[in-house]
Amino acid sequence: MGIVTVDVSMSLDGFIAGPNDSQENPIGDNGERIHEWVFDLASWRERQGLDGGASNRDSKIVAESFENVEAAVMGRRMFDNDDGPWGDDPFAGHWGDDPPFGIPVFVLTHHTREPLEMDNGTTFHFVTSSIERALERAKQAAGNGDVEIVGGTNVIQQFVEAGHVDEIQIHISPVLLGGGIRLFDSLESAPIDLNRTSAVASPDVTHLRFEVIPQK
Amino acid sequence: MGIVTVDVSMSLDGFIAGPNDSQENPIGDNGERIHEWVFDLASWRERQGLDGGASNRDSKIVAESFENVEAAVMGRRMFDNDDGPWGDDPFAGHWGDDPPFGIPVFVLTHHTREPLEMDNGTTFHFVTSSIERALERAKQAAGNGDVEIVGGTNVIQQFVEAGHVDEIQIHISPVLLGGGIRLFDSLESAPIDLNRTSAVASPDVTHLRFEVIPQK
Repeated sequence: MGIVTVDVSMSLDGFIAGPNDSQENPIGDNGERIHEWVFDLASWRERQGLDGGASNRDSKIVAESFENVEAAVMGRRMFDNDDGPWGDDPFAGHWGDDPPFGIPVFVLTHHTREPLEMDNGTTFHFVTSSIERALERAKQAAGNGDVEIVGGTNVIQQFVEAGHVDEIQIHISPVLLGGGIRLFDSLESAPIDLNRTSAVASPDVTHLRFEVIPQK
Repeated sequence: MGIVTVDVSMSLDGFIAGPNDSQENPIGDNGERIHEWVFDLASWRERQGLDGGASNRDSKIVAESFENVEAAVMGRRMFDNDDGPWGDDPFAGHWGDDPPFGIPVFVLTHHTREPLEMDNGTTFHFVTSSIERALERAKQAAGNGDVEIVGGTNVIQQFVEAGHVDEIQIHISPVLLGGGIRLFDSLESAPIDLNRTSAVASPDVTHLRFEVIPQK
């Protein structure tokens, strides 16, 4: 039986993207300061279909972060941040033809839609009922594997608040961003206690892993 | 020549105090989840004039965090969070007769006031001109020692933004607080790059130390 995970990079002041994010600027102004530590890692590049990159401890941690993940859940705006439902193009979605998942991805939306099978093993399924139903379907698809709640932040917060997330890995980048999208902005059922299960300090980033302690 | 430091405990979601903070509830609702790791440490207790406590690695880190600090700077509301300037009592200030500093403390305020000498070597000085003047006086008082910018968060942010802080130590407590007072809420001159110089993971808390990289 797998677990449900969250895995994100965050600035020391809590942002996962900079200000002014848009379709053209998905990680916002200066958002690369949060995420750039990952771009040259062999394991990350391999998942994007790219050769080369550094095979260091960070790369190993990134590889481990998805090796057991067999299904994912994301919000509609992370699938396709156009304003309208699905936009003009029925294949709209800003992951391109070859999304870097290779697993079933369950997209939360208010608009029904047939599953969308992509080239490399990624199939997008669209779930309109509830986050619980999305999770149930994702768990079923994952079998003994894990389910990752990919984002956006409002989706991550909903799953954390509902007590559905077992583990949170945060990669803290050494920058104060001062603005943008906060990972945790509006938790209402807090405080939520955590148990830090690992900490790895690399020169470029600090990887902290937490178990979520179930609320009473 | 000393350096200028900041040293604070923070929840994983960036809060240094919970919601509804007041004179009677200075760390806010559930704020103890952020700060409780420190209360039983020998070094912290000693500084409060108390015996006993645990002599572990956390205690050593706390001892190190103030061993070189020879002067401090704080905001007026951290000295005395009454609404009026100084309230009715000329000795108002919520640190009591025996504040746990034992060093000169420079309080930023709009209201002039004579220095206030306390029992244990703490003297409060009141600076009305500018944060730069407060820092200059604190540095002078510290000699070769360090100056700590104690708080509140708006004061810490002002000093960080102005480029006056050399080192930030954050003790990350394993909790999502969901609300309260954020350490970094309104940095305007961000992004501010940091260099993580140490990371120590204890069971109850993760100590991360950062150098602030001067902005160009």
